[in-house]
Amino acid sequence: MTVVDANLLRDVAAKALKRAGIPQDHADQQLNLLFEAELRGIPSHGFLRLDRITRRIANGVADPNVRGLHEWRKRAFLSVDGQRGLGPVVVNAALEALTARARETGIAVAAIRNSNHIGMLGWYAERVAAEGFTIIALSTSEALVHPWGARRAMLGTNPIAIGIPSEDRPFMMDTATGIVSMGEIHDHAHRKAPIPQHWALDAAGNPTTDAEAAKKGAIAPFGQAKGYALGLAFELLVSSLASAAIGTDVRGTLDETEICNKGDIFIVIDGPHYGLKAYLDEIRALEPAAGFDRVLIPGERGRACREQRLRDGVPIADEVWERLQVLAGTKVAA
Amino acid sequence: MTVVDANLLRDVAAKALKRAGIPQDHADQQLNLLFEAELRGIPSHGFLRLDRITRRIANGVADPNVRGLHEWRKRAFLSVDGQRGLGPVVVNAALEALTARARETGIAVAAIRNSNHIGMLGWYAERVAAEGFTIIALSTSEALVHPWGARRAMLGTNPIAIGIPSEDRPFMMDTATGIVSMGEIHDHAHRKAPIPQHWALDAAGNPTTDAEAAKKGAIAPFGQAKGYALGLAFELLVSSLASAAIGTDVRGTLDETEICNKGDIFIVIDGPHYGLKAYLDEIRALEPAAGFDRVLIPGERGRACREQRLRDGVPIADEVWERLQVLAGTKVAA
Repeated sequence: MTVVDANLLRDVAAKALKRAGIPQDHADQQLNLLFEAELRGIPSHGFLRLDRITRRIANGVADPNVRGLHEWRKRAFLSVDGQRGLGPVVVNAALEALTARARETGIAVAAIRNSNHIGMLGWYAERVAAEGFTIIALSTSEALVHPWGARRAMLGTNPIAIGIPSEDRPFMMDTATGIVSMGEIHDHAHRKAPIPQHWALDAAGNPTTDAEAAKKGAIAPFGQAKGYALGLAFELLVSSLASAAIGTDVRGTLDETEICNKGDIFIVIDGPHYGLKAYLDEIRALEPAAGFDRVLIPGERGRACREQRLRDGVPIADEVWERLQVLAGTKVAA
Repeated sequence: MTVVDANLLRDVAAKALKRAGIPQDHADQQLNLLFEAELRGIPSHGFLRLDRITRRIANGVADPNVRGLHEWRKRAFLSVDGQRGLGPVVVNAALEALTARARETGIAVAAIRNSNHIGMLGWYAERVAAEGFTIIALSTSEALVHPWGARRAMLGTNPIAIGIPSEDRPFMMDTATGIVSMGEIHDHAHRKAPIPQHWALDAAGNPTTDAEAAKKGAIAPFGQAKGYALGLAFELLVSSLASAAIGTDVRGTLDETEICNKGDIFIVIDGPHYGLKAYLDEIRALEPAAGFDRVLIPGERGRACREQRLRDGVPIADEVWERLQVLAGTKVAA
């Protein structure tokens, strides 16, 4: 790990994206998404992914120049063909159309197919909620999670983010429906650390504490049968509405050569905003249970991490930092 | 427990609702909701609640004659004042308006306040999905669940149901965001059986295996921090959009005298339906993990239970069956 000044890190990543031939406006959007993940302590969705993005562009499975084709199938139902565009570029263009429509209709939905990895859903949810909209965001991914009671992966990690306006800062939660991310398992494998018994199965479908074995196996759904039910519902809902691939047919979020065929759904609501702060403050002030320092509100640990990292620098894995500088042309490959 | 013929059970319950002064059409809707819960093996949302419904009508906090006032705040945003109506009557009227509007706009949302307990969300989700719509249903309730890391209840059990059309039968999942229902804890207390360590806290906020102590305490969120984040997001979203009470201010879903001030949100989407059956069949056919007979699809255990109970009769708690017959006037109170 190296702690890198936040501005320097951002500048180097910006150079790397520019050298990949991404138009400035689109590069900025991709940069902001990855940089925010680093600031909020989610390195699996940060600059680790930049190398793959540039390779996908070079391989023709990501097109940095497009924003997606919009078709309003009905007054409040936007169907988006992402044209193999960069995830955040396609989503931002869709959200712009969606919020404008929701102001008129009260609610609108975008169903996106054929775009690339859209990264941390909370990034979108928080911004849209800050504009005064309630938002539900769903996205599918390669099958990494096993159905409850099964032995192999059939579901994406299928995250959900929800953003809700409030008096001061919006509420934002963002969670995957796997008990842990594959990034976390890779991190344990890298450190040769064991994983807890209930996190994952090995390739044969048996519980394992060996992170290396888990990499070839399947992650458990969070919350057992209930989390499985939710993750499956999200997989079906997204695939169905976005006409996207499903289950083990999903490709292109973890590789460098396959067309990305997952889907994304954004529901934006222009509703009333009531005072949520008093209630959230009441939760914050609750006496913590044994073993807890305090009661947290979802999203706030990430925000605190962001403030601290902007001030004190961003810890980044040596190989990611090294690669970033090579891609930026500020350092020659070893 | 008594096993009662399904038709007999339904007839007796119908008589009880009629005697409570509910108009026939509205009584039928309330009956169908409660009966379906009994058939699907969810007695906590079944005829156990009928006595309370009749008392709430007698006490003037439930009005059996109304269907709710509809105000389209925007083209696809329906605001419903439930006028203290019966939950299923108010929701069914809202869903009728909502599906008609979603056909035109592609998506529509209903935000309902001031209605009574709406029961099993899956009942609505399955029917709307069978009509060809994707649906997300949310509802709040009295605070029974503690935030993750806290010592007391601040959240409703905040269920979510999702229905999605498919070639044959719709997919439907319905789950609360508490690890278990308060009904389940009451059932353990009744049987003087201990509860698992991680289910609940006592009134002092300490983990307990004593079901009697848990009745005065708080239920854990399912899936630890992730389930807490979802349950809280649902509480905020519903309260905000429906202008409903929040947290410990919620009343009227468990008592006989308070105006019910929780909220309900229904989002209905008229989108494409793709073939989900092949994927669901693939999941059904997966080799089960150790300790499992087979891999289940959410909602299907309830459907199987329904078939079996229609055929073989419905097991019902003696005191519930007794009370039902007294309310129906088919038996004199002991």
